[in-house]
Amino acid sequence: MNAPSSFTDNPLPVLPQPYLVFLGDTTEPGYAKTAFGLRDWASDLCVGEFSCSPDAVSIGLPAMTPAEAKAAGARSLVIGVANPGGVLPESWTAALVEALDAGLSIVSGLHARLSDVPALREAAERSGQQLVDIRVPPSAIPVGTGRKRSGKRLLAVGTDCALGKKYATLSLARAFKERGVNCDFRATGQTGIMISGGGIPMDAVISDFEAGAAEMLSPDAPGDHWDVIEGQGSLYHPAYAAVSLGLLHGSQPDVFVVCHQPGRKTILGLPDFPLPAVEDVIDLTIRLGKRTNPAIRCGGVAFNTSGLAADEAEKLMADESARLGLPVADPIRKGPAFEALVTSCLGEE
Amino acid sequence: MNAPSSFTDNPLPVLPQPYLVFLGDTTEPGYAKTAFGLRDWASDLCVGEFSCSPDAVSIGLPAMTPAEAKAAGARSLVIGVANPGGVLPESWTAALVEALDAGLSIVSGLHARLSDVPALREAAERSGQQLVDIRVPPSAIPVGTGRKRSGKRLLAVGTDCALGKKYATLSLARAFKERGVNCDFRATGQTGIMISGGGIPMDAVISDFEAGAAEMLSPDAPGDHWDVIEGQGSLYHPAYAAVSLGLLHGSQPDVFVVCHQPGRKTILGLPDFPLPAVEDVIDLTIRLGKRTNPAIRCGGVAFNTSGLAADEAEKLMADESARLGLPVADPIRKGPAFEALVTSCLGEE
Repeated sequence: MNAPSSFTDNPLPVLPQPYLVFLGDTTEPGYAKTAFGLRDWASDLCVGEFSCSPDAVSIGLPAMTPAEAKAAGARSLVIGVANPGGVLPESWTAALVEALDAGLSIVSGLHARLSDVPALREAAERSGQQLVDIRVPPSAIPVGTGRKRSGKRLLAVGTDCALGKKYATLSLARAFKERGVNCDFRATGQTGIMISGGGIPMDAVISDFEAGAAEMLSPDAPGDHWDVIEGQGSLYHPAYAAVSLGLLHGSQPDVFVVCHQPGRKTILGLPDFPLPAVEDVIDLTIRLGKRTNPAIRCGGVAFNTSGLAADEAEKLMADESARLGLPVADPIRKGPAFEALVTSCLGEE
Repeated sequence: MNAPSSFTDNPLPVLPQPYLVFLGDTTEPGYAKTAFGLRDWASDLCVGEFSCSPDAVSIGLPAMTPAEAKAAGARSLVIGVANPGGVLPESWTAALVEALDAGLSIVSGLHARLSDVPALREAAERSGQQLVDIRVPPSAIPVGTGRKRSGKRLLAVGTDCALGKKYATLSLARAFKERGVNCDFRATGQTGIMISGGGIPMDAVISDFEAGAAEMLSPDAPGDHWDVIEGQGSLYHPAYAAVSLGLLHGSQPDVFVVCHQPGRKTILGLPDFPLPAVEDVIDLTIRLGKRTNPAIRCGGVAFNTSGLAADEAEKLMADESARLGLPVADPIRKGPAFEALVTSCLGEE
């Protein structure tokens, strides 16, 4: 499911794959979320793992040197860990230079720019490899036009940030493919971009071009093709709603799925802001989204029930589904409710 | 009304004023809109005009050399004309170097960066003057927090772009001051920034920081102080709604004024997108704006009636005012309806 788009008119950059996943000298698994995401969602694109300390966390892939990974087909080393502050520690430099000299490009989602490190810049020039900072959006983003594009689109929206939009859309795209649907996952954030090999970091785009970037992300496609677009933020988020609205307008989705984490009462980090009700998100998304797609509809609701026991989660989702009159499912737990959500999104009976 | 903010906690840059207005070698008045805006709204800050061709357009200010303007108190030369493409023509370079050497900084709203011209960079270093590109937002914009700030805020919103939000808010700020209200005009676009001497080009801010930039633009202020904030775009604009929503959330306005141009039927340049009704803009602005200010209300409507005869405009505004139950006025024509709009915005009887 993670192959780069085959549309020749898509000007988005494509990351060099497969990957050697770099774990640095990180001993805290919480800092290796990107690496675990790659293992879980792009395992066929990860030939092995590599660290620069015997104490580093492992994600359970074969340990390889850069030279071994290159021989196994890897085309880039992807930095799978983040430090607080998003810096590039000096302790990583020798390992990254080794990778470049072995013929691997470097892919990073950190705040710090790879090309700001002289040793990496020199090694990249020497080896002819790329330094890819995926937080940097493409340079030639046009202003949005609102023009209706061919093909079908699904967008994840949310009651908040950081509650499962990426994994919901990855799971939906995988399920679409399993049903034989021609489909691409369209990443809008850094981990999603690493997993899928392309995309646009929507939060890093200049505001005037936000909708235009979303239009660029899901170009014209065959009529039966689906773009499954990773969501960002929330229309109710006091800091990030601009990102969400530009993404909604530019994506012109035919179908959206509301992502929510039961039990979360307030916006993450902003305890004065209550989380909106799912039905309010549905109503507002339709009201705003119909500006660029009058046929927009809600396909259902994705719950992140990772904090609940299985039976508790199942009962809650059944109750919510009855209350809302829509499929409600956990896209990680799957099961019949998830199949109903997939069917509803595809508009099948 | 155009004095830089007196709030010491406001980190926004302040332009060196007063100005010598530069008209280049432009013979087409349509390209000198910024210069005319400065003459009309910041005449007390413009000591004179300067061009590098005898055929250049005039805005009716005293003609001065940079040295004469410096002697008359000018602190910068502001580029009041734009060429198609926003480039800096080579034919201007000698005049701009003359200004720097005379002790004036240069202020530009063009796409082209002043510091990309070696002769200007050298002259600025030599003379110790600044090259100010106002399209560049401040560097340290924080993420929004939604925290309620002290003081009162008015924001212009619109049915579309480019229909009079800047002049409506300039006119309202001037009227507030005439009534003795403690108030600042907060510019969100380049011409407004030149007129007021400060502000943030909201369309040039990275999406993730759009609401944060709007929060920075109108900081905490005394309880009876008003910030009158220039609007941008429209929540109904398929390309620019992200800018408008970030500005709305971050501005947390107590009052908003809807700006509209009667007769405009579709979004400028996008004939497939009908203009929204004024009442729809009111309803949607309240729905979205109450997320960061539950007390948000509509103060009235500003019509740009420049295309209508005076009696026609007066009748149309009276009819619309009766239909909407709100003051409707042309902030350039003024008159009793405008006084009613000012009164309504201030919440007075």
